This record gives sequence, C-alpha cells and structure tokens, in this order.
Amino acid sequence: MLVVMKHRATADEIDAVVDTIRELGYDARPIPGALRTAVGLIGNDGHVDTARLEGMPGVAQCITVTQPFKQVSREWKEDDTVVELANGTRIGGTEIAIMAGPCAVESEEQILTAARTLRDMGATVLRGGAFKPRTSPYSFQGLGEEGLRLLAKARDETGMAIITEAVDPDGVDLVAEYADIIQIGARNMQNYPLLRRAGRSDTPVMLKRGMSATIDEWLLAAEYLVAEGNHDVILCERGIRSFNTYTRNIFDLSAIPVVRELSHLPVVADPSHATGIRSKVVPMARAAVASGADGLIVEVHPDPPKALSDGAQSLYFEQFAELMEQSRVIARAIGRDLLPALASPTASS
Amino acid sequence: MLVVMKHRATADEIDAVVDTIRELGYDARPIPGALRTAVGLIGNDGHVDTARLEGMPGVAQCITVTQPFKQVSREWKEDDTVVELANGTRIGGTEIAIMAGPCAVESEEQILTAARTLRDMGATVLRGGAFKPRTSPYSFQGLGEEGLRLLAKARDETGMAIITEAVDPDGVDLVAEYADIIQIGARNMQNYPLLRRAGRSDTPVMLKRGMSATIDEWLLAAEYLVAEGNHDVILCERGIRSFNTYTRNIFDLSAIPVVRELSHLPVVADPSHATGIRSKVVPMARAAVASGADGLIVEVHPDPPKALSDGAQSLYFEQFAELMEQSRVIARAIGRDLLPALASPTASS
Amino acid sequence: MLVVMKHRATADEIDAVVDTIRELGYDARPIPGALRTAVGLIGNDGHVDTARLEGMPGVAQCITVTQPFKQVSREWKEDDTVVELANGTRIGGTEIAIMAGPCAVESEEQILTAARTLRDMGATVLRGGAFKPRTSPYSFQGLGEEGLRLLAKARDETGMAIITEAVDPDGVDLVAEYADIIQIGARNMQNYPLLRRAGRSDTPVMLKRGMSATIDEWLLAAEYLVAEGNHDVILCERGIRSFNTYTRNIFDLSAIPVVRELSHLPVVADPSHATGIRSKVVPMARAAVASGADGLIVEVHPDPPKALSDGAQSLYFEQFAELMEQSRVIARAIGRDLLPALASPTASS
Amino acid sequence: MLVVMKHRATADEIDAVVDTIRELGYDARPIPGALRTAVGLIGNDGHVDTARLEGMPGVAQCITVTQPFKQVSREWKEDDTVVELANGTRIGGTEIAIMAGPCAVESEEQILTAARTLRDMGATVLRGGAFKPRTSPYSFQGLGEEGLRLLAKARDETGMAIITEAVDPDGVDLVAEYADIIQIGARNMQNYPLLRRAGRSDTPVMLKRGMSATIDEWLLAAEYLVAEGNHDVILCERGIRSFNTYTRNIFDLSAIPVVRELSHLPVVADPSHATGIRSKVVPMARAAVASGADGLIVEVHPDPPKALSDGAQSLYFEQFAELMEQSRVIARAIGRDLLPALASPTASS
Repeated sequence: MLVVMKHRATADEIDAVVDTIRELGYDARPIPGALRTAVGLIGNDGHVDTARLEGMPGVAQCITVTQPFKQVSREWKEDDTVVELANGTRIGGTEIAIMAGPCAVESEEQILTAARTLRDMGATVLRGGAFKPRTSPYSFQGLGEEGLRLLAKARDETGMAIITEAVDPDGVDLVAEYADIIQIGARNMQNYPLLRRAGRSDTPVMLKRGMSATIDEWLLAAEYLVAEGNHDVILCERGIRSFNTYTRNIFDLSAIPVVRELSHLPVVADPSHATGIRSKVVPMARAAVASGADGLIVEVHPDPPKALSDGAQSLYFEQFAELMEQSRVIARAIGRDLLPALASPTASS
Repeated sequence: MLVVMKHRATADEIDAVVDTIRELGYDARPIPGALRTAVGLIGNDGHVDTARLEGMPGVAQCITVTQPFKQVSREWKEDDTVVELANGTRIGGTEIAIMAGPCAVESEEQILTAARTLRDMGATVLRGGAFKPRTSPYSFQGLGEEGLRLLAKARDETGMAIITEAVDPDGVDLVAEYADIIQIGARNMQNYPLLRRAGRSDTPVMLKRGMSATIDEWLLAAEYLVAEGNHDVILCERGIRSFNTYTRNIFDLSAIPVVRELSHLPVVADPSHATGIRSKVVPMARAAVASGADGLIVEVHPDPPKALSDGAQSLYFEQFAELMEQSRVIARAIGRDLLPALASPTASS
Repeated sequence: MLVVMKHRATADEIDAVVDTIRELGYDARPIPGALRTAVGLIGNDGHVDTARLEGMPGVAQCITVTQPFKQVSREWKEDDTVVELANGTRIGGTEIAIMAGPCAVESEEQILTAARTLRDMGATVLRGGAFKPRTSPYSFQGLGEEGLRLLAKARDETGMAIITEAVDPDGVDLVAEYADIIQIGARNMQNYPLLRRAGRSDTPVMLKRGMSATIDEWLLAAEYLVAEGNHDVILCERGIRSFNTYTRNIFDLSAIPVVRELSHLPVVADPSHATGIRSKVVPMARAAVASGADGLIVEVHPDPPKALSDGAQSLYFEQFAELMEQSRVIARAIGRDLLPALASPTASS
Repeated sequence: MLVVMKHRATADEIDAVVDTIRELGYDARPIPGALRTAVGLIGNDGHVDTARLEGMPGVAQCITVTQPFKQVSREWKEDDTVVELANGTRIGGTEIAIMAGPCAVESEEQILTAARTLRDMGATVLRGGAFKPRTSPYSFQGLGEEGLRLLAKARDETGMAIITEAVDPDGVDLVAEYADIIQIGARNMQNYPLLRRAGRSDTPVMLKRGMSATIDEWLLAAEYLVAEGNHDVILCERGIRSFNTYTRNIFDLSAIPVVRELSHLPVVADPSHATGIRSKVVPMARAAVASGADGLIVEVHPDPPKALSDGAQSLYFEQFAELMEQSRVIARAIGRDLLPALASPTASS
C-alpha cells in the first residue's frame, strides 16, 4: 500500500506516517518524488486500517497495490527504473544495452579476445560464467574465482562492465567484488536465500526468469531483491519450457510488453538460451528489440566449436556484428537506439 | 524421395522413371525445374530399392528426404513458395502481406466499414469468420453462408482478397466459391478429412498451427494438403498453449525462422490470437515482422467493445494504422517492405 | 439456468414456464425428476430476467448454473449418468467397464482372435479403429467400412459391444450403423460439426480429451453433444501434452476426481495412449482405477510387434490378463468391481 | 562406466584397477557385491580407453552406462536402494512408508498434536517445514531453528522420524542436526551448491522433482547427491507445471514406474502439492500407491482453515485416517503393505 502525502506535507508529517505504519506492524519506506512524497507500507497489507492513515495530517490518500508484487509494480512507482553502471551503461532508458560474451570463462586468451572484439563491435557489458550451474555433475563447472579474476582483467583492459552469475548466498559478496551486475540464473529464480543476499548487495542484479515461472512468480522473485533494499534490478526473459523441441525453450517475447506494463523494472532478452540454436539467435534478437526489450544478452565465443559449454548456441563474431547492425536498425525504427560504443581506452587516456 | 534427372534427360526417360515408381507401389510427381526435372516419389519410402531407380537412363541421383514431411520440406523444393491471389497479393515473396478484419462477419455495415477502412490503410486481404468454431455451443456461431455473401460484397467493392474459415469437409467447396484463401483453424489442424478436401481444392489454404502442435505435426498437416495436390499452402503461427496466463497463448516466434528453414512454404503470424490482449498486438506484430514472418493476420473491428467475439483482442482502426506504420519501418529495416496498398477502385476505373 | 418447479406443479404450469422461456429467446428443456420437475433454460443465460420466471405459478426457484458448461454439470443433474449398451454393459455405475482391442482393425483373423480372447478374459467392449486419423498422410489410414464390417462380425460372434471412431460428420451415421459407441478422438475434440452430428445420433458417444484441452474446454465439447440431444456421453482421459518425453503424454489422473465432481457423466481412462509404453500400461491402469475411473480402454494386439499402428503401446494377451486381475483387486479395494464377463454365446444359446 | 571384476578377483587386482582409473583422470569407486565386485569409473566417460582396463588381470568386462545419470541408474546398481531411518522406517522395500504432518511448524501445540495423532494413525515419519520457501517475500517464512527444535521435541515424544527442508548450503548441517531426512524442495532441485552440501551429509535426503524438470534432469540432480557420497537418496514426485488450472499441478504418476525402471532409488509421491485441493488428495494417494510408489508424503493439519500456509490442501485428521485405510487396501492388493505403525512409546518403556 502507498500512502501518498500532500504536496506541502512537512517532514514531521511524513515521519508521523512512518511511525504509525511501524506501530501497525509493517515496514515503512518513504519514496520522495518530484512533486510529493509517498510512503510505502511494505508487507501483506490485506488488513491495514487505512482510515487511521488517511486521517493523519499531510496525507492525501492511500493507494492499494492490487498486484501480489508491490514495490516492483508500476502502481508503486510509475517511472521506469534505469540501472546505471560505472562505465556509463544505462539499462532501462531509451537506448538499448548490449551484453555479450562466452557462456563460460575458459582462459585468459579466450575472455580477452572476446572482450576486445565485442567492445569494438559496440557491446558495453561482457558476460561470462565463472560459476556454472550444470545439469550433470560431471560437466565442466566453471573456473570459479580464477574466472572472476580474468573477467576483472578484461574489464580493466577494455572498459566493459562485467555480468556474471552467483550461485549461492556465500558467493554473492565474492561475485560483487568483481562484477558490475550479479546474475541470478533461471534455475535459481526461486532460491530465496540467494535472492535475499543479493538484495542486500549494492551491486545491480539481473534476475533471469525461471524455466516454468509465471510472470507473477518472476516479479515476486524480483520483489525479494527489492524488499531487501536493492532497487537496481534488471529482469531477463530467456525462454520457458514447452512441449516444443526444435528450439531449446519457447522465447516468450509477449512477456516483454506485459512486464513493461506491470513493472517499472527494465527487462532484457536472451535469445541464445531461448532458442539454443546459433542460426536462430539473430532473428530472435531482432524480434526482441522490436517487442520492446531494454537490452540483449547474447552468447558469443571466439571459437564456438571448441566452447566448453553451450557451443551450439554461441555466435561467431561476424554473426554478432550482423546482430548489432540489424538490432540497431530495428531500434531506430521504433524510436530507440543502441547505447553508443565505449570510447577506446587508448583514446580516452 | 526425389529422383533427380540429368540436365539433358528426355521426356521418355522421365516417363520411364514415373512408371517404375508406380510399379514399385508409390505415387510419382514430376517437378520441372529451370535446369533439370526431378521426380518425387510420394509415400512412406523407407524400403524403396534406389539402386533400381539410379540405374535408369537419364537419372542423376536419388535424394532421400530425411524429414517425416516430404513435399513441404526444403529438401524437396529449395525455392520459396509464393502464393498469388487474384488481386495481386503475393504471400511468400520479399514483400510482407497484411490481412486484417473482424473476428466474425456480423453485418453488412460492419464488414463494409472494416473493408473500406483497412483497404485505405494498406491491408490487401480481408479476414472475417462466417463459420465460427466456438468453445461453447451457446456462443455466437457466425452468420454462415450469409456471412460469405457479405464478404464477397466487400471484395467486390474494395478489391480486397478474402480469407475465411472452413470448418467441415462439406463446407470447403462453399467457402471456396466466395474466398481467395480457405482458412483451416487451429482446432482443425489435425482434422484430416477437412485437410484432404481442402487439398483437392484449387483455392489457396492457410493452415493455422494447432494449440499444442509440434512443428513436425504442423508440417505433416500441411503435407496432407500438398499430398492431395494443393501446393498453395500458407502456414500461420498463432500461439501455443502454455502454463502462462497473462497472455492467452505463447506466441512462438522462434517457430518462424525454424519453419522457414525446414519448409519452402510461406509463414504468417497472428499476434491477435497469440496474445489475446489488444495492447500487446502492435508490439508483437512488430516482433513477428522482425523475426521473418511473410505476413500478418490481425483482428480489427470498427467498434471493438461491441464485437460479438474476441472483442478484447480486436484493434481500433487507429491502432491498426500504427501497426501498419511500425511494421513497415521494421520490414524495411530488414530489407523487406509491406506489399503496396491496392489501387483505389475509383481511381482504376 | 434451472427453473425448479414446486412438488405439486401442474403440467400446465410447466408448459407455461417452457413457453415463457422460449418467449425470452432461449430453449427450454423439461427435466422430470422423482419428486419434482425442473425446466432447463438452455443458452447464454447471463441476462435472463429471473424475477419474471420466479413469479410464475408453480415455480419454486431459479438456480444459476455457475459453470460455463450447463447440461453436463452436476449442478444441472446431480445423479451419475449411466450409459447402457445393448449387451448389458453399463458405464458409469458401481462396476467398472473394460474396453480392449487393437489400435486398428487389420484383418478378419486379427480382430476375431482379439475379440474371442479378450471376451474370455472379461472385456465386454471391443475397440478397433476402422478410420484412423494419422499424423502423416503416408501412414496406414485404416480399412474404412470394411473395418466396420469386421467389427460387426466380431460382435456377432462374441457378444462384445463395439467402440470405434468417427472422423467426419458424414461418417457418423455409417459408424453408428455398426458400433455401440461412437468414439470422438482427441484430435477432434473441438471439431464442432462432428460433435453436432454425433449429438444428433441415438448411439452413445465417447469423447476423448484433446491433447491440450483444459477441463472446461473438454466439458464444453461434451456440452455440444448433449445440447443436440444425445445424453449418452462418456468422457475419456488419455493424457495431455507436456514437456516430458519419457512417456508420450502426461496421464492427468487428477482430472478423474475433478471431472467426477464437476459433471454427472462417466469418465474412463486410456493408459495406452497416455503412456505410449507397453510396460507402463498395467501400473497406470491400476492407478486409474484407484483414482475413481468408471472404465478403462486399452490397446491389446494378438501380435504387437506386427501391429500396423501403435505396436509399442499394445499389450500382449498375457499382460492384459494381468491387467484384468490387478484392476479387479484394486476395484474391490475401493468398494467397486469390474463388470462381470459376458456369458459365453454357446452357453446362452 | 562399470568395470566388473571376475568372481575370484583378488584385492590387489581390484586396487590395480582403481589406480589405473585414477591415472586415466577419473574417480574410481569399488562396489562390492554378493558374488563379485565392480569398480565404478565416475565422470564423463565418453573417451575412456576400455581396452586398457579390459586387459587387466581379474577384469571380466567393462559396461558402459548409457544414461546421462550414472550412479543412480539401474545399469550401475540393479538392486533397489532401501533407505533406513533410526526409528526403523525403511523406504524402498516391499512396505510403503507414510510421511505426514503440517506444511509448516507453527507452534508446539500444533506440531505435537499432529505428531501424536498421526503416529497413532500409523504414519512413521513426521513432516513439517521450519524454513519455508515462499513465492512472496511478505508471506510467513517459517519459524526457523525454533521450528527444528519443536520437531525434535515431537520426535522425542512420539518416536516418529523427522523430515524437514533445508533451503541453503549453510542450513544443511543445522537441519541434519535435528532431522532424519533432509528435504530438498522442488524450487531447489537444481540448486547445485545445496545438493553438493547435502551430498556430503550422512543424513538421508529426499529430492523433490522440480516444477518443470524432465526425468533426466531429476535423476541428474540426484546424481549430484550420490556423486558426493550420499547414497541414501529418496526421490519425490510432486506434480509438474501444466496449462491445466483445476489442480495446482499435474501429478505425473507415470513417472513413478518410469523412474523405478531407470533408477534403483526409492520414489515417494506427494498428492498434496500435486493437486493442491483437499478433496483430491485421498483418491490421488490411492492412485500413487497403485502406480508403485514406495511412500506417500501428505499434508495434514490439526485445524486446516487456520493453517499459516497451504491450508486448502491440508487434510483433516479423519481424512488422513481414511487415506491410511484405503492406501493399505490398495497396497495389499498389489502384494505390498504399509509399514507397521510405531510401537507406542509408553508400551516400549
């Protein structure tokens, strides 16, 4: 529930509302706005005595948030959330962010080659898994902290921001030391201890949709992050499970305009995991941009046939160049654009 | 299986191959090409004695079609099929065809208003159901033949081609009398007697994907049409069933590039049934064009809140105008375009 | 909507209610009961003026049927429907009916061998397809009317009732000439012209659940049959489509108690199509009986490896004998039983 | 891969095989059997030089495990795994284990009342969540360690074994201090750090199937547990996600005979989560037993309408009594039985 204060409400009046909400047994969160402040009442608000709040000095009205998710809803916050990274990448604004890189960090040469090339092609965020959740215990599980160090090296050299996955609560702080965005993978979308820990981090979080998550469940998982205080949350549609077998998953692109209406959080699309087939990544990246996605995250590998994981869906560099070009044209066709490429580090020094 | 003839194979040599295939108990279909002719062996070809065919004069080689669907596969016919209608609309070429109109024909005024407006906005094919398959027996079931007559009247007045649904084998000829394209609906995708009858018609057929059809099942249903001799087949992706509930179905846009690779048939997309929500139709129409669809079929109603069926997903005219404009920009962005609008009948007289 | 008459309502009062309902633009159907008569108002009853009906002489009350399906609902008719066949088989009573036979009728010897053996093992209904809806146009499509004649011969010789599928409206009368139950297959669950024609037949109909049909859609399809006047409708759960691949479909056994609560129609289970794997048919047949199914329909073939269709899921006779024995024990464990075997025709002559 | 030793192979010969496997870069695990020993080669064994192993003294043959899961497969270990608990409960033998209790531990009175009553009714394992993974961050999240203490108290008083969920790696040891079985919930089926930690515990683990997990993914998740050394693993089918909405999930009972064929691990069924509807729990519990489940886990609450979670699917005690009786009859009908009730603690003192 939102308690909207009058335009001229005083700080004392706002404090009194906060105190009253706490007395009622809920958490209160002041949300300053350009014209007036609202105070969010956080928790299961089915039985709140709104009359008591509405009668307080300075209160304009109480607005019930009808959705099960609260702080991530458009009812709670009308303006789009824009997540800003240290290297200037903005996710959720007019311009579309491109994240790219290999499925897993495999070696210094591999990740540096990828970073340099992708940066030159216009990507501003580098993806690469250091901790890999794998279906079989006998598959390559990632380089661990060594992978994180290699990612940091790639950032230092190229200026790209880093996104990489944390797979358990204890790993969140470690990943946050090295990364600009902590990724929560599809298999962990409802790993609540992990969400809570990531929600207490200062680092932005990208939350992938679970393989069979409804949109409500996805937004409620995001609510776990925001409820702990981390408001820099990015959603990621990556395909859902279906009976269909030609593609690995069904890319639920309709979810993008649906989520944009329900929530103020930015939403990016992952055509690599959604299709699982290299030749389908470019057309579906175009479609994702056309549907209104705020960004793309794409798997690209310097030598896809030798990739230690997900080789069949990793693009060659030349395919990524084509994707950039086509996505840019589509973005402009709908009044947006891709984010500008990073300035060359040599040029800027 | 395809028996590919040598460049200089004579008519007699081709005839001999046809005769031999028939002796072996299969149907044979000569497929003339620019450079050389192939003879298709139609049927379950698991045990064909290819040595006997390969030894015949004029035969270059025998090619096994590995897919369960045969004549609709790219292996069988490499070039895109383009379906041409009497009013010049071409479906499957570089340009994208736009079909639009109300869910059901309701009255002369309704369908004529729709036809005039949509024609002026650039659609070249008018959709409208005369026979409506409805989930409940107590819902409006369409105007029947009277609806067909009203569609024909709209065609006469506007020059638009007509697409409307046939729901049983006996109705195919009746629909074919009035329509330029016979639609087979999603619920009837595996109604084989209906498919066989439509396969014996001279009128093009648009085959919607069944609600839970795999891509193989869909293409095998198209094979029923082609196996009976009707080669003017258009596929239509309209969303598949899923656990997701915000949208009526999941729009499986990845199926579009997948089908374009597997088959030479054109594929159009129906964002209205796929989403079931008016505000999501325009973004998903854009995404469909970006993914490579050869056409769109969209529900538009002169007065959506009063529609007798599917009102919640029907566009207002102004929304359709926006859809045309955005789709055109996207089409051009990927090197295609929308088909040109029909010349005004007055202007051309 | 049901207009329930008072205990002592006269025939004239009932007629007056019927007339009024028709004046209001709806169909009326008197439903005599042991204690009092109800009049069903058939159609989309959202805007009926109940006050006018409730004020009429002899009317006790108006009951709204809240479900979208009306005449098939428990609200409409509280008592279980029992479908009785000429050979004494009752489907929907305390005892459980067993239907068995090959997927398709292939030859006289095959179907007679199957019928004799299955009858001796206790099945009272013989299944066997004469018209087969097949995914590929090049697969065996059934013997057609010759298959029907062989089924009739098997009935004459063994006393078993016959269930076989009709695949198009024109075929309904032909099938009804030979069969005791017309089967509507899963692919045709929403083939409304077929349902309407079967609804006008005097022969009982078994309606299989569509591959991705919700329970509401399934019951609404049954409503099409009943709305046309055929009240002898049997439902059949046969598995629904899922992402799971070890079994052909997911056997939705929970649907059985759900449907039994929502509807008065009997519901049988088809473990053969639900699993698609011979070794899983017997355990799932047991589970279906335990969940409350009113019958089983099972594929059994005299020589499964040589079956022209569905061989991999067809039981050997000895497996069917085991199924009968185990199902009987389970049936008795829950206070039911299997229907008694048919008396030997020799014995009865 | 399994290296099967000859009947008379010496300990030295076995050690030599183990050493060679390790030299080849794999883990080796000797598996003594009644007649002969096998040595399991653990890891991704696609490129093992079997000739080298087959040529060693004492080696009878090398058997490739064709499934992606290895140690949990029947190919690896033919005999059923039986998990034994301290109070004598055996899961996976002829007799069927019954686990019951509230969704969440709410208070001492609630859990003790439940434990006493359920024990007297014949359950031998008490379920109850102390750490609850909840879709919304604002829902009741469980009593935490206090809940574990109350469970232990219930065990001390009644003799029941305890099953309760661990939700993060750090919580595994804490749960293992109090519980006889650590539950891994459906949302955490692919939480690999959690699985690895539970795999290093001495306490048996029950692994629920993920909401959209294929059977291969489920068994591969179990492989994580076994690969770490914990062989006391119980699988639990609890329904999978589908388009169907009457029941919360689709109870995939066919998975039970499928898993029993593929794996030697015991598999129990959870009709409470599978259906989500109190009135459907008893029939589906019967069906689960009939399909071959090795146990049931059921939600029962002393006062379901007041339950803090999952009240709508919790049984009343009298319904549980009915479930016990009906399940027992079905178990006996298929040659099994329920485990005997625990001796009364008073009687045993």
